[in-house]
Amino acid sequence: MRAAIFRNGEIVADMLAEPVPGAGQVLVKTLACGICGSDLHARKHAHRMVELLRHFPGRKPMDLSRDVVFGHEFCCEILDYGPATERKLKPGTRVCSLPALLTPQGPQGIGYSNENIGGYAERMLLSETLLLEVPNGLAAEHAALTEPLAVGVHAVAKANIRGNEVPLVIGCGPVGLAVIAALKLKKLHPIVAADYSPTRRALAQRLGADIVVDPAHTQPYATWAEHAAMSSEEKAARPPLQAMLPALKPALIFECVGIPGLLQQVFEGAPRDARIVVVGVCMESDRSEPMLGIFKELNVQYVLGYTPDEFAQALRLIADGEVDAASMVTATVGIDGVAAAFADLANPERHTKILVEPWR
Amino acid sequence: MRAAIFRNGEIVADMLAEPVPGAGQVLVKTLACGICGSDLHARKHAHRMVELLRHFPGRKPMDLSRDVVFGHEFCCEILDYGPATERKLKPGTRVCSLPALLTPQGPQGIGYSNENIGGYAERMLLSETLLLEVPNGLAAEHAALTEPLAVGVHAVAKANIRGNEVPLVIGCGPVGLAVIAALKLKKLHPIVAADYSPTRRALAQRLGADIVVDPAHTQPYATWAEHAAMSSEEKAARPPLQAMLPALKPALIFECVGIPGLLQQVFEGAPRDARIVVVGVCMESDRSEPMLGIFKELNVQYVLGYTPDEFAQALRLIADGEVDAASMVTATVGIDGVAAAFADLANPERHTKILVEPWR
Repeated sequence: MRAAIFRNGEIVADMLAEPVPGAGQVLVKTLACGICGSDLHARKHAHRMVELLRHFPGRKPMDLSRDVVFGHEFCCEILDYGPATERKLKPGTRVCSLPALLTPQGPQGIGYSNENIGGYAERMLLSETLLLEVPNGLAAEHAALTEPLAVGVHAVAKANIRGNEVPLVIGCGPVGLAVIAALKLKKLHPIVAADYSPTRRALAQRLGADIVVDPAHTQPYATWAEHAAMSSEEKAARPPLQAMLPALKPALIFECVGIPGLLQQVFEGAPRDARIVVVGVCMESDRSEPMLGIFKELNVQYVLGYTPDEFAQALRLIADGEVDAASMVTATVGIDGVAAAFADLANPERHTKILVEPWR
Repeated sequence: MRAAIFRNGEIVADMLAEPVPGAGQVLVKTLACGICGSDLHARKHAHRMVELLRHFPGRKPMDLSRDVVFGHEFCCEILDYGPATERKLKPGTRVCSLPALLTPQGPQGIGYSNENIGGYAERMLLSETLLLEVPNGLAAEHAALTEPLAVGVHAVAKANIRGNEVPLVIGCGPVGLAVIAALKLKKLHPIVAADYSPTRRALAQRLGADIVVDPAHTQPYATWAEHAAMSSEEKAARPPLQAMLPALKPALIFECVGIPGLLQQVFEGAPRDARIVVVGVCMESDRSEPMLGIFKELNVQYVLGYTPDEFAQALRLIADGEVDAASMVTATVGIDGVAAAFADLANPERHTKILVEPWR
């Protein structure tokens, strides 16, 4: 079968052996698979991912001298079952799954593995017990957005929202957009979002941002403060010594960029007592000023992935039309187009989410 | 009057003009004032403190070309009152105060200021409304430990303890010891604490640590894990996919060292989902691996200072004999001994807390 393969630091189209489903596994046809910002980062910083996994003895790092097929945001169609399967869903059924494969050696990730082929291939293996049937006749290219939306749902869940916060989303790529969509579902308004790209700011508004900021012209934290003024009741309820501080509602900042220096920018701009949720995946070493965190008593919550429940919820949200995730898809490519798509995604005006359709 | 002055990067003993109490202010005699780790850091990194304050437009940085008198952990005796004071406490009364002065220009810090003289001077000014009378005939050298204990009380309060966590305290200097004392009051056991110094490990046990670790011989996180095993009920209550993770109670790690590289060490050693409270005041730029935070979904809470209520609580805890804060005092010096004390504090075997008695 054909696949877009990560080989020697580049993405190349080539043939791979057909995968054969083991016990409890299912052979599926990949209908659509999103290209994730983490895939772009991984292409550049794969050696860092490998190096950092030395801190996680249970996780097997990629062997970068061997082929890897990326792709962990997929919607597939059931082709065939391996042994020891219940086969409740008929071949031809469209399914999603969180990107993990249950193997005799324990659960393993799909997408950053030499063994487990990701969604940039014509066919792949999934675990029967993790399959979610795509409901409502939802198109595969929409169902494939379950995974990135689940990232936003999870980030917002980890933020422990109390209801009086004013959120600020830094970066409106797919991760930031998913966070905005999840915040809208929590009815936490106004949602302030910042991105340099007019296209992405328009998408942010479409997905639920109430106020968008171009950081080239306006300081996002100043705009945030304009929309975070306490009510007169909130002001009156403050203890005496707090009455000397600016009368602002609690800040909840989502860092959705994931490049070095960004967290330090947030430390500089954030108001006192801000809670910062780091959703952007920065794979490089980063530098910041602890004293800023200390002076402001900041809280930083790093997040990754989602729970199985959050993943299933994200699929339902898309199927029920609660989140217009499809609006972020700007192109679809076949296997031969993946390498160019990686390059194209560098331009935020041209692309937000590119889907790979390996059957094309 | 005499004072130990921070001048041109050094501590020197010299004469200063007598302070004159303004409206609402009180002239006090400094009975005892602790030397804080932050004072040691500030002597080395004062220019960094000044530079970082550009991010806080309301706060006036020190002018390092002018004299500064450090000292923010003090117990004093009332000498005289300024105008517009109620004078409820008689001259001669022993008092504590959080290190802030209410001035016509708003509240200002005491101890890192050109204007407001800290506790390394024979006399200083306090605000009448912030005075706390020292109860129970408590000695001044014990009451002076209110401020560092309040730091621990605050750090533990900011940790939002749910009751099932196993705490690990990294560093058993005065800050770590105060955290241990505050954890003991929360009845959160076992308290695991790590320090290279045998003296400080013994102090940690005296103040409430149940298990102490010498990082030169044993990995603190391994010792922590030995004492953090879930009960069989907790194991059984886990959702299915979590059952694959190590069966450990939640980790609550207090970083009480405050030097560059320490937070990265914590990121490397911490288990998944750990909450990290940064109490050590690192004044230098620091580097860490965001991917470790992300993979482990760590939470980092930076903390500073205390509330007025926490400060008052700390004084009561010492006065009531609930916390044996005095056990951390290893020496007292006069004004002429402050410079040498700064040097001596570098040796954790010789000293933990040195008190300055400017009247000596």
